[in-house]
Amino acid sequence: MINVGIVGGSGYTGAELIRWLLAHPHVNIVSATSRSYVDVRIDKVYPNLSGTRDICYSALDINQLQKCDVVFFTTPHGVSQTITPDLLNLGVRVIDLSADFRIRNVDVWKSWYGFEHSAPDLIPLAVYGLPEFNGERIRDADLIACPGCYPTSIQLGLLPLLRSQCLDTSDIVVNASSGVSGAGRIAKLANIYSEVGDSYRAYGADGHRHLPEVVQGLNDISGDSIGVTFVPHLLPINRGIHATIFANLTDLDLDLHNLYATVFKDKPFVSILPFGEHPQTRNVRGSNHCQIGLHRPFGGRKAVILVVIDNLVKGASGQAIQCMNLMFKFPETCGLNSTASVP
Amino acid sequence: MINVGIVGGSGYTGAELIRWLLAHPHVNIVSATSRSYVDVRIDKVYPNLSGTRDICYSALDINQLQKCDVVFFTTPHGVSQTITPDLLNLGVRVIDLSADFRIRNVDVWKSWYGFEHSAPDLIPLAVYGLPEFNGERIRDADLIACPGCYPTSIQLGLLPLLRSQCLDTSDIVVNASSGVSGAGRIAKLANIYSEVGDSYRAYGADGHRHLPEVVQGLNDISGDSIGVTFVPHLLPINRGIHATIFANLTDLDLDLHNLYATVFKDKPFVSILPFGEHPQTRNVRGSNHCQIGLHRPFGGRKAVILVVIDNLVKGASGQAIQCMNLMFKFPETCGLNSTASVP
Amino acid sequence: MINVGIVGGSGYTGAELIRWLLAHPHVNIVSATSRSYVDVRIDKVYPNLSGTRDICYSALDINQLQKCDVVFFTTPHGVSQTITPDLLNLGVRVIDLSADFRIRNVDVWKSWYGFEHSAPDLIPLAVYGLPEFNGERIRDADLIACPGCYPTSIQLGLLPLLRSQCLDTSDIVVNASSGVSGAGRIAKLANIYSEVGDSYRAYGADGHRHLPEVVQGLNDISGDSIGVTFVPHLLPINRGIHATIFANLTDLDLDLHNLYATVFKDKPFVSILPFGEHPQTRNVRGSNHCQIGLHRPFGGRKAVILVVIDNLVKGASGQAIQCMNLMFKFPETCGLNSTASVP
Amino acid sequence: MINVGIVGGSGYTGAELIRWLLAHPHVNIVSATSRSYVDVRIDKVYPNLSGTRDICYSALDINQLQKCDVVFFTTPHGVSQTITPDLLNLGVRVIDLSADFRIRNVDVWKSWYGFEHSAPDLIPLAVYGLPEFNGERIRDADLIACPGCYPTSIQLGLLPLLRSQCLDTSDIVVNASSGVSGAGRIAKLANIYSEVGDSYRAYGADGHRHLPEVVQGLNDISGDSIGVTFVPHLLPINRGIHATIFANLTDLDLDLHNLYATVFKDKPFVSILPFGEHPQTRNVRGSNHCQIGLHRPFGGRKAVILVVIDNLVKGASGQAIQCMNLMFKFPETCGLNSTASVP
Repeated sequence: MINVGIVGGSGYTGAELIRWLLAHPHVNIVSATSRSYVDVRIDKVYPNLSGTRDICYSALDINQLQKCDVVFFTTPHGVSQTITPDLLNLGVRVIDLSADFRIRNVDVWKSWYGFEHSAPDLIPLAVYGLPEFNGERIRDADLIACPGCYPTSIQLGLLPLLRSQCLDTSDIVVNASSGVSGAGRIAKLANIYSEVGDSYRAYGADGHRHLPEVVQGLNDISGDSIGVTFVPHLLPINRGIHATIFANLTDLDLDLHNLYATVFKDKPFVSILPFGEHPQTRNVRGSNHCQIGLHRPFGGRKAVILVVIDNLVKGASGQAIQCMNLMFKFPETCGLNSTASVP
Repeated sequence: MINVGIVGGSGYTGAELIRWLLAHPHVNIVSATSRSYVDVRIDKVYPNLSGTRDICYSALDINQLQKCDVVFFTTPHGVSQTITPDLLNLGVRVIDLSADFRIRNVDVWKSWYGFEHSAPDLIPLAVYGLPEFNGERIRDADLIACPGCYPTSIQLGLLPLLRSQCLDTSDIVVNASSGVSGAGRIAKLANIYSEVGDSYRAYGADGHRHLPEVVQGLNDISGDSIGVTFVPHLLPINRGIHATIFANLTDLDLDLHNLYATVFKDKPFVSILPFGEHPQTRNVRGSNHCQIGLHRPFGGRKAVILVVIDNLVKGASGQAIQCMNLMFKFPETCGLNSTASVP
Repeated sequence: MINVGIVGGSGYTGAELIRWLLAHPHVNIVSATSRSYVDVRIDKVYPNLSGTRDICYSALDINQLQKCDVVFFTTPHGVSQTITPDLLNLGVRVIDLSADFRIRNVDVWKSWYGFEHSAPDLIPLAVYGLPEFNGERIRDADLIACPGCYPTSIQLGLLPLLRSQCLDTSDIVVNASSGVSGAGRIAKLANIYSEVGDSYRAYGADGHRHLPEVVQGLNDISGDSIGVTFVPHLLPINRGIHATIFANLTDLDLDLHNLYATVFKDKPFVSILPFGEHPQTRNVRGSNHCQIGLHRPFGGRKAVILVVIDNLVKGASGQAIQCMNLMFKFPETCGLNSTASVP
Repeated sequence: MINVGIVGGSGYTGAELIRWLLAHPHVNIVSATSRSYVDVRIDKVYPNLSGTRDICYSALDINQLQKCDVVFFTTPHGVSQTITPDLLNLGVRVIDLSADFRIRNVDVWKSWYGFEHSAPDLIPLAVYGLPEFNGERIRDADLIACPGCYPTSIQLGLLPLLRSQCLDTSDIVVNASSGVSGAGRIAKLANIYSEVGDSYRAYGADGHRHLPEVVQGLNDISGDSIGVTFVPHLLPINRGIHATIFANLTDLDLDLHNLYATVFKDKPFVSILPFGEHPQTRNVRGSNHCQIGLHRPFGGRKAVILVVIDNLVKGASGQAIQCMNLMFKFPETCGLNSTASVP
């Protein structure tokens, strides 16, 4: 058993993390903090957890967190960079689900987030928490920067092709769509049902905060400099990311399905569907799985790669636990086996 | 042509009112006020109106409103009672879509809304704007108190039976459901998609603000004192009210369908479906129509009355225009003829 | 480990049953039959199960089923009554999720289902599979008639009050709403998205097939003859039952919350929410839990009881496994612990 | 007043056509045929039309249709090509909403639809009914081939750029999403709520029947041979097409917004949003309007064009009436002025 803490546990990502950790056989939750709900039972805020275990949110207390083997941050950006230095000094490992340690270039960070990073020394220590790319480094890391939801789907969708060197990396188009929970449990007008329900639209076509992470990640995978256009859209559903990726192949004899099946053969959370099938978001709703469908319209040079994940699980809390499993030598799938319920 | 003003035009009810008034052949919009969007084009806030006409929201200006033949209030409660006295003194008629003049008993008002009414003298002058009940009085009114959305559906559903004296008025059960737009264009947590989407629940089972209006309205229709239990629910749709009303008949020989068909024969916005059919909310989405289905399970004493309206149209802005048509001697259906688009 | 078979495994109830049984620690699936998908991989039909285990649907083969300790039927009505006699003779226990053995009176059966029951001798042997009411008898049963989804929610909602003898049983009103998956995986017009989405309506107000089961069940619980009006509605969501029950108390001093909390104290799948709260369907989506909210508007004689379950889990497949756990002396919650994911 | 007939009036496109025609000031509906609903009132099948006018569906009768000035076909492909020759011979003009006369190359037709075209002589006479491209020819046409929904959105989105000769036509990517009503009022499994609701997926990535029409249309506009990749997706909403178009500019000094605003200046149904805004499908729900948003991420060579229409209106029935207005010298917007209701 390991002791874990969660900082920022009352948002959707935090609540989802707690839900999975409560069911994890090797985890003891020491503390779940929330500024808004101190001393409030978690199942008062999330009645779906009613009857599981009696836990209350608490205020952030470094003495409590010090008892933990690992602390998760499910906070808005800017928070973990102020607390993580102390935790690392106290020997507590950190898994950060916020954006704070994802971007290696502090100038790029500043240009997208609008302020100076307060712990730039730690950025080089942070390991990017995408297990299918970075598994070995995650095992030994003290600080994990978990990927964003869109970047997870895009990197998993392009990883085999980028490694294969069989595509034109100068002009990749990513058309992605997300459920509304990606916008968080935040009372703002753009999130209310009547602004989102029964409709569909693009947003951030001129630049979404996940873009620099996508570019950095694709560059890391390919060892090259990638040209990518990324347009996110908002779906009238709660959960799910669907990425439709368009890329031009340079090797027309490539066996796309075989390439992907081989690369992900031993990756328990990535399923390659039979060639020509179309995944849908509900296939992975509430699960840590990623499904990928592969197409080459009329056998041409254009590859169309379809990727689905649950933004709150493989795109956030489930992937964070997958990292934790690796860091503490648990089986990679421990506590993460459940499948989506359909319909 | 009449000149009209709209106070509080940036909420959903206000925008819907403007949308209908823009298409009304006898209306000229003089002013549409909004505190949040002064000098902002309406089609910037509501792009569905793009290309109709160039109108900007303005600040509230009594000199502007003075030019109007009639002013609509689509404001939160408490606003119209402070401005209406001046408008009436200036000879401007008022159609109030807020709750301010709905409740005749000022003590009941205070107990539900938490403060003293500031214009109690005007309350007796206000005519309750339910045209199917009150058409004659509406024609001559200077001040209309438009019904709430739930009360409209419930009163239309019970009007024939209450008048017929054929039901037990001591124990009427109303189970009603509303789309989310009824909660307004308000950035609060309870309204966000991720709290409402893909789910269904009751709310206010212990007392909803529409209850005193329902009780007063049913008492007025029946001339009796009604016992009613009212439980509202929240639907994961934008628009629509569905009321399921359970009442015990005292005359088992009553021809329920004939009763309703007769009472509503000349009411252009109320359709009685063939006996035994079930209306659905989409039948009236975006229209001023009300549809009523009638049932007597196994031919017993229990009548089940199913009523659907669009909460923003027949439950608010459409009904207000219907009142305006009566007040200014236009045909009752003028500008209100459009039907719902299905699916 | 026990060996189980599923007859009719390609509908939603069957697929959900398989999903839970795959994760059950003491179950080995011997056979899952489907007439439409013989030799087709289950994860071809239900890609959410991709990566779990390789199983194909098979044709119904009594020799295969004979190897089972228990066989589940998730078939349309009329099927299990033709096969169950042979299975029982072969010593195989049967858990029937269809309606075939729910109704004890064969004349009532015939009047609702339109044909003579083909195994009337077995009806008296069938134990009604509502564990919270019937737990002891289920342990020793060879044939379980699992409750329907609406009846489960209604009986759980009324069980404490009926036993308490504190309500007027002559006039109970049940207004219930269901997600669309309750209509099954059937290609008929009434089920298509464009007929159901973004809308809400009642159906079967004049008599739904679950009504005789509800009446029989409530009579059994109360030992009395119940008068109940039941109107089901269709929600634009996939999963979830919400029952709103209205009943008149005869004892105005009754502590409603204490009554329910006491009766369900040791029932692991029923949660009584704090008095005055409103459950919502998503709280139990994908889980075997039932949540109940209790209200007495203005402290009067009318009790309003709000019940939510997932129609495919506690209303079908989860409850069937709960019965199986009791029959084979596994812990009642074995394999059924997961909670709903919110949002 | 002109006399019109509708063949195939009980599908969603037909019903929507009837709904608009009923409100058109210059139209008299002579006949609306349906094989499934002969002598059934239209408002029995579409209760949203209750109270408008008493019309029953009839069987197809050439003597009835002969009385018409124009006949609309809202039939599955293959029907209109068998009846249109007779109607044209009788001097009746035809507006065909099916695919029958859209594709000029009969071999391409056969390869996508699987059978020989039965009226190939008429194909050269058919005028493609996209008024923003083809207005003059539509005025004088006797036979209109109305565009499909996806092709309408894509051609409107690319028309100014293609004419400007400022883009690389060799590699255009179209990622489009449609509401479910595009699949018609058809009882098949893929259309049922539980297969579509609360989910999102691509379909037909390897070739959708609208592709040859898109290619032909874009070639016609540009006078060139276009390379286009088209991937459609299915949205969990009833109505709406959203096309996200990615194209590389060859002139980096192009003022994209000015180009589009100029080309569509006198087109009453196309609105160009301010540069950098994102249209959403609900903006045009239930209306004949098209809204276009324009982006150039980071000012680069990639243009991102966002187009929304209602698939049943501007993508089908509304556009057909727009053609009718041109053919009979009515104002182009006659009977088509209504705006979307939001939310």
